[in-house]
Amino acid sequence: MNAREAYEKLVKWSRELFLIESTMELLSWDQRCFIPEKGHSHRSEQIAYLSRLYHEKQRDPRVGEWLEIASTDSHEPDSAEYANMREWSRWHRRATKIPLELVEELAKTTSEAESVWEKARARSNWGLFEPYLEKIVRLKREEAEAAGYEKEPYDALIDLFEPSMTACEFHEISCSLLPFIEESIGLAMKKPNSIDDSFLFRYFPLKIQEEFGRFVAGRIGYDFKAGRLDVSAHPFTAYIGPGDVRITTRYNTGDFRTAFFAILHETGHALYDQGLKESHWGTPCGMYASLGFHEAQARFWENQIGRSKGFWKFFYPRLLKHFPILADVPLEKFWKALNVVKPSPIRVEADEVTYGLHIILRFRLERKLINGEMSVREVPEAWAQFMKTHLGISPSKEEEGALQDVHWSAGLFGYFPVYLLGNIYAAQIKEAMEKDLGPLEELCSRGKFFTILEWLDKNIYSKGRRHTPRELIAKITGRGIDIRPFCDYLRNKLELLYLGEGNP
Amino acid sequence: MNAREAYEKLVKWSRELFLIESTMELLSWDQRCFIPEKGHSHRSEQIAYLSRLYHEKQRDPRVGEWLEIASTDSHEPDSAEYANMREWSRWHRRATKIPLELVEELAKTTSEAESVWEKARARSNWGLFEPYLEKIVRLKREEAEAAGYEKEPYDALIDLFEPSMTACEFHEISCSLLPFIEESIGLAMKKPNSIDDSFLFRYFPLKIQEEFGRFVAGRIGYDFKAGRLDVSAHPFTAYIGPGDVRITTRYNTGDFRTAFFAILHETGHALYDQGLKESHWGTPCGMYASLGFHEAQARFWENQIGRSKGFWKFFYPRLLKHFPILADVPLEKFWKALNVVKPSPIRVEADEVTYGLHIILRFRLERKLINGEMSVREVPEAWAQFMKTHLGISPSKEEEGALQDVHWSAGLFGYFPVYLLGNIYAAQIKEAMEKDLGPLEELCSRGKFFTILEWLDKNIYSKGRRHTPRELIAKITGRGIDIRPFCDYLRNKLELLYLGEGNP
Repeated sequence: MNAREAYEKLVKWSRELFLIESTMELLSWDQRCFIPEKGHSHRSEQIAYLSRLYHEKQRDPRVGEWLEIASTDSHEPDSAEYANMREWSRWHRRATKIPLELVEELAKTTSEAESVWEKARARSNWGLFEPYLEKIVRLKREEAEAAGYEKEPYDALIDLFEPSMTACEFHEISCSLLPFIEESIGLAMKKPNSIDDSFLFRYFPLKIQEEFGRFVAGRIGYDFKAGRLDVSAHPFTAYIGPGDVRITTRYNTGDFRTAFFAILHETGHALYDQGLKESHWGTPCGMYASLGFHEAQARFWENQIGRSKGFWKFFYPRLLKHFPILADVPLEKFWKALNVVKPSPIRVEADEVTYGLHIILRFRLERKLINGEMSVREVPEAWAQFMKTHLGISPSKEEEGALQDVHWSAGLFGYFPVYLLGNIYAAQIKEAMEKDLGPLEELCSRGKFFTILEWLDKNIYSKGRRHTPRELIAKITGRGIDIRPFCDYLRNKLELLYLGEGNP
Repeated sequence: MNAREAYEKLVKWSRELFLIESTMELLSWDQRCFIPEKGHSHRSEQIAYLSRLYHEKQRDPRVGEWLEIASTDSHEPDSAEYANMREWSRWHRRATKIPLELVEELAKTTSEAESVWEKARARSNWGLFEPYLEKIVRLKREEAEAAGYEKEPYDALIDLFEPSMTACEFHEISCSLLPFIEESIGLAMKKPNSIDDSFLFRYFPLKIQEEFGRFVAGRIGYDFKAGRLDVSAHPFTAYIGPGDVRITTRYNTGDFRTAFFAILHETGHALYDQGLKESHWGTPCGMYASLGFHEAQARFWENQIGRSKGFWKFFYPRLLKHFPILADVPLEKFWKALNVVKPSPIRVEADEVTYGLHIILRFRLERKLINGEMSVREVPEAWAQFMKTHLGISPSKEEEGALQDVHWSAGLFGYFPVYLLGNIYAAQIKEAMEKDLGPLEELCSRGKFFTILEWLDKNIYSKGRRHTPRELIAKITGRGIDIRPFCDYLRNKLELLYLGEGNP
């Protein structure tokens, strides 16, 4: 077998992994959107079977040999082949280090834990969840030890979602961001009731919300011939495969923001997936750069675009046609209401300013749990303490505290940081884009969303995973991860909102 | 390995096959109901991958050895183990005889042929389809030769759908049925316009059709917590797994019958699947007895029940609430309209009497094709000749002739007979049921559908594939396949419809 042949073997192997994964994606989409009540137990069996198949194939003993032979060919550092070899080697290293038994025990434990977590949350009973979380933490620590790390166990977990990010680096990022967030909250809290957002809670009929959401998603570039919009308890994007990227939302007829911003957020994810190159599908090069970058796409459309004044200059007249109930609300007032800063105990309801605090809290706790510096039992108190100190609020029940997120019950340790990285990347991307295209406010107000999409396609979507996230942000911005654009963006907005100054 | 261990290996292997198949069932359900336009090509790849996986696993070289060891244990002829061993051996014999390359070539050819068939049908152009059908016939003949048969190649194909049925036996059945059908058509055609069915073509709003259909399906026993009703171009039932059996229909606002009888038909299929024993899922014993039996369940609910006067005595008042537009139509008139006999060139639009002719025609042609006694080119003329002779009509275009069914393009040779067997079994089942429960007209008019369902569950659903279809019909009726109950049932109905006599 020569290097070329070994490389082709790897492509075939990789495509099979992707086919299994994309089938699981449909099983899971259906489970969250359409499955009948009594179908869940069989669905779990289907997913468990494919998951086992996936993990076995991932551990195919021939992969190491193919990688060795294929690596005797040298590839240009910017080529698809180079990137594929880099990622396959990464996957292979990790897969061969983590025993299949550990993977299966984690799958079994988290599957049980998720339903216990649901019960615990419904009853605001941390004690119910505690033994399961303890077991998951123990297994994730085992996973980290098996995978290996340079400085601390948490690094081995965060690397799965944001390759080469470390706890140390993320800690520094969050430490430099924290004072800015606190200062911003202070600014907003000086005039706590200066922005009226009461009209966002009028009656918005579901069907019309759906129509408007579809209109906007399509208008900014989402291809409905290669997608669908459905309803699920928690909004998500399902990348079934080329030509099939589905989004979901949930509707609240008493709150305009719920469905609309979920649609924008998921559309952001979906535009990225729809923009990945079909010809690379089945290999790393056909994938998103990192989860941080994926989140950045969602945040970019949801916040940088969807909460900008320019966006609403363009869409507000249309919104009024759909919802005459807002006829008495001027554009300026509507825009301000969408951007109000209000501390909330719930992460998914947080505004752009306070959101980061929710992430920093989770990061700090899970890092300690994984590094063995905190016990599961101590979580609720540490949680309450942090919320009181930094947001000035105390969750009245665990349902609004440490039981609010599904992540830990699903074994997703090291995942939360990508949400904050997404916000930071999004602001950096916006700044770079404006250097090329001029002010986004201007483009949005003229409905030039295709221009924006084209830029994203050229600079991000079409590149897939050809570069590491670190390389990619450097290619886009000429520098590394940097919180400055995010702070500038928010400071500017806050001045407009709360001081009546600043440039739009 | 002892016999028990070998048997357990077979159970595990069998469950894996079922899991792969049930995953393909969801992929295919989604493809027919919800997939976005651009998602088809990726979906074909997903299905092709799982299908390859299935066929490889089916050919697992260890299965023969397990069967041999497991067969050293003896099981009671009525036990689940006995039935499972019987079916696994059947599958194994066939799988080892048919080369994987042939299976894959057939899959590839039929996948292409289906889209060519769609085009050919749209253009009524048999010539376009001819070369593809020729290739499929050739491959199916190869399959039959590889699988082996006693008398003629066609036997090897029909056996896949109705185990141990032969061309010879089905030929005899159809020959004894033919004169009865012709006589019945003659009877109906004496008074061709005696039944007014014009009101069935009034305007029936889609949403209300759906509501009524759901109501009836639920009322006769379909469990919506273990199912769904959706829309697709061709109605079908998808058995995803225990607790998840979905049905579809299509709506025609200008014809009451289209959606409603499709819902009843698919509900019949679905009640069978919902009634199969979950504890046997993944083994033959958890399967339907044969496709003929499956079709019998659909026909039973669609025709024996759904076109009976008793059924409408119960549901007609409710129907009038949904559709006040029928207020001027008395029950008797409505019931007659649903049962009118009218020769049509289209199989799926045929009434209960003429339906059999459509099957006999297809059976005769495909038997000749497979046995090498007719060429593909001769089909359209033979088709036209048969239709003219027996139904007195000539299809004006191929779209209404030999291009109307998808089956041959999908390689389904030997399948058509199950439709007619379904009608025959259904009438035999009805007769046996009435011996136990008294007249169905009576039960239906009082809404005692649960009593009917219970009988079916006890005598058919819960038995799964424990018996061969031949054994099962004997257990139910005390005799073999018999057309007499079907003829009696139709004769009785025709007398009521066209002579105003007979007992309901």
